[in-house]
Amino acid sequence: MNVFEKEHLQKFAEEVFQAMGASEKDAAIATEVLISADLRGIDSHGISRLKGYIALWEAGRINMNPNIQIVRQRKSTLTIDGDSGLGLVVGPFAMNTSIQLCKEYGSAWVAVRNSNHYGIAGYYAMKASEQGMMGMSMTNATPFIPPTHSKEAMLGTNPMAYSFPTNKEFPLTIDLATASVARGKLEIAKRENKQIPKGWVVDRNGKPSTDVDILEKGGLLTPLGSLEELSSHKGYALGSLVDILTAVLSGANYGPWVPPFVPYLALKDDLPGKGLGHFFGSMEIDGFRPLDEFKKHMDHWIDTFKNAERIHKDQEVYVPGEKEWIHQKERTKSGIPLNAKVIDALETISKKFSIPF
Amino acid sequence: MNVFEKEHLQKFAEEVFQAMGASEKDAAIATEVLISADLRGIDSHGISRLKGYIALWEAGRINMNPNIQIVRQRKSTLTIDGDSGLGLVVGPFAMNTSIQLCKEYGSAWVAVRNSNHYGIAGYYAMKASEQGMMGMSMTNATPFIPPTHSKEAMLGTNPMAYSFPTNKEFPLTIDLATASVARGKLEIAKRENKQIPKGWVVDRNGKPSTDVDILEKGGLLTPLGSLEELSSHKGYALGSLVDILTAVLSGANYGPWVPPFVPYLALKDDLPGKGLGHFFGSMEIDGFRPLDEFKKHMDHWIDTFKNAERIHKDQEVYVPGEKEWIHQKERTKSGIPLNAKVIDALETISKKFSIPF
Repeated sequence: MNVFEKEHLQKFAEEVFQAMGASEKDAAIATEVLISADLRGIDSHGISRLKGYIALWEAGRINMNPNIQIVRQRKSTLTIDGDSGLGLVVGPFAMNTSIQLCKEYGSAWVAVRNSNHYGIAGYYAMKASEQGMMGMSMTNATPFIPPTHSKEAMLGTNPMAYSFPTNKEFPLTIDLATASVARGKLEIAKRENKQIPKGWVVDRNGKPSTDVDILEKGGLLTPLGSLEELSSHKGYALGSLVDILTAVLSGANYGPWVPPFVPYLALKDDLPGKGLGHFFGSMEIDGFRPLDEFKKHMDHWIDTFKNAERIHKDQEVYVPGEKEWIHQKERTKSGIPLNAKVIDALETISKKFSIPF
Repeated sequence: MNVFEKEHLQKFAEEVFQAMGASEKDAAIATEVLISADLRGIDSHGISRLKGYIALWEAGRINMNPNIQIVRQRKSTLTIDGDSGLGLVVGPFAMNTSIQLCKEYGSAWVAVRNSNHYGIAGYYAMKASEQGMMGMSMTNATPFIPPTHSKEAMLGTNPMAYSFPTNKEFPLTIDLATASVARGKLEIAKRENKQIPKGWVVDRNGKPSTDVDILEKGGLLTPLGSLEELSSHKGYALGSLVDILTAVLSGANYGPWVPPFVPYLALKDDLPGKGLGHFFGSMEIDGFRPLDEFKKHMDHWIDTFKNAERIHKDQEVYVPGEKEWIHQKERTKSGIPLNAKVIDALETISKKFSIPF
C-alpha cells in the first residue's frame, strides 16, 4: 500500500479525462465524483475504475462530448437523455437539475437514460443534503444477481442512496447495494485466504456456495437477504425497484439487457432501451417542517442510535454514513492508500497518455 | 379454518368501527384498508387486528372523529397532522391528498404525524398505480429490531411499498417489511412445530437464536440481511430510512419512542413527537415517458423475469406483488379463511358491541 494525496490523484484523473476528449469542466466534474469514492473508503468505485472507463471509451461506448438534455418534463418529474456521455458527467448534470427544480416545486425527480457507470450513489444524494434537502440517487448495473427461484443473472447490484442534513459533522447518508455483498468483499476474502459465509454467492445451478472463486465458474451474487429462508425475495424486490425507476421509467435498458461495464462482454440483441439508467431526487426539508427543527431531531435521532445498548461494550454502534465519513476525514488529511495492482494500472495509463503519474 | 365471504367481514367491521364512533364514511374507508390485507393473504394485518384497534381505542389512544389537516406545504411537499385518528382513516386521507396534488405538480410527497397503525403499506401504493401513477407508502412501527452491534429495540418492522401500473391483471407492487421476517412467520413455525433458521431472531444478549419462543424471553427480530456477515447493516439502514422519512420529517415519534400497537405497553417519557408517522408519495408516470409506453415495457419486464431460468423446473419465479394478487383473486371469489383463534376474537367483539357476526 502506497499513500497518495487526494490532489495528486485528482490532477492525474483530470488530465486523463481531458486526454480522452472531455472538456476541462467535465474532466473536473468526473474527477470529483470518482475521487469521492476513494475518500469515502469505497475503493472499488474510485480511481481503480479509471482503467474501466478508458476501456469503455476505447470500445466506442462513451461519448466524451455529449449533448445531455431534458427530453420530457411535467413540473417536478422529468427525463434526461445522457447521449452516451460518461456517467460521471451525466449524473452530476441530472442531480443538479433535480436540485434546481426542487427549489421551484418543493421536490424534483429525474429519470436518466442513455448513460453508463456513474460512480458511487451516495455522492449524488449528498449534493442535495448539502443544500438542506433530502437527496436520493439510484442506478442499475451489470446483471449479476438472479431473482429468487432462478439461476439467471437478471439484476445488477443496483444501489440506492439517501442523504439527510444534520448539524453533525456529517449528513446521515444511506448508500447500499441491493446485493447481499459487493464483489469487492469476495476479492478481499480471497486475498486474505478467508472462508466466505453461506449466502454470499450461488453456483451456476443456483445452489448456495462457499467457494470464493465461484463467480469465475458461472456463479452469481445473491440479493440482499442472501437465502430464500432469510427473505432473499426482499432484496430481489429492492433490486427490481431500482431497475424499474432507473430504466423502465427513463427508457434505458433493464434486467438482463443492462450494458456491462466491461467492453469485452457484447451488448445483447433486441435492446429495449438506451444505455443504462439512473434516478435522482431531491425534496425540500422545509416543505415538511422548518429545516432547523428537522436537523435538531436528526441530531437527536443519531445520538439515540449511537447510544443504543451494545452487544459488546467495545463494539460501537454506527449510524448510516458514519464509517464513510470517518474515512473521508482521515483520507482528506492523510491521503488515499492504493494497492500495488491499482498503482500498476495507473502507471500503464500514465504511459498510454504520456501523462506523468 | 372457516371461510367467510369478503362482504360478510366487511359489514361486520364497518358496524364495529361505527360503534366505536366512526362516521359511516370513515368506517367504510377503514374497512376497505383492513380487509384488503385479508384478501391479499397478509392475514396478520387484516380483520385479526380489529381486536387491537379496539384495545387502543379503549385505552383512549384513538380519536374516532379526528380533524385531519395539512399543517405545512411547499407545492409538492407537505405534512399532515392525523389528530390521533385511526391510521386506517388518516392513511387514506393522506394518500388521496398525494394523488390529487400529484396531478398538479407531477409528484407529491406527504409526511404524516400523529397517526397510528395504518394496515398494509401496499394498499396505499396501489391507489396511485390504479391512476397511472407510481405510488409509494411507508410507516414506522413498534420497536422490535436492534441496530447492527446493538441489542436494544430501536426500529419497527418499518415497511415500504411501491406500486407501478402495468397492462397485466395486476400492478407490480413491492410491499416489504425491513425486518428479515415478520413475527407471523415465527407464529406459523411454532404452530407447525418447525425449527426456525439462524438469522430470524436474536436473544436478549443480541446473539442469533433458533428458539421459536425467544421473543417472549426478551429476544428481538433482526433487520433484513439477518446476520452481520450477511449485511444486516443494510436492513438497519433501510429501517432507518423509513423511520426518518415517516417521523423525523413529519414530527412524529421515532426510534424507541414509537407508540406500541398494544395499549398495555406504556408510552415512553420525553416523547420527541406526536403519534406514529407515515410517508406517502405519487409520481405521474407520464411526466417521465408516455404511460402506454411505460406499461408496455413493464409488461416486457414482467415477462422477462417470469421466464428467467429456474433452479427447479417446478418452482415458479414470481414478480413482486404477484403472489398477493393470486390470493386476492382467489379470496375475492371463494372467500377469506380465518382460523379458530381469530373467529373467537371476532365473536367476543360481536358480544361486546351487540353486533351479529
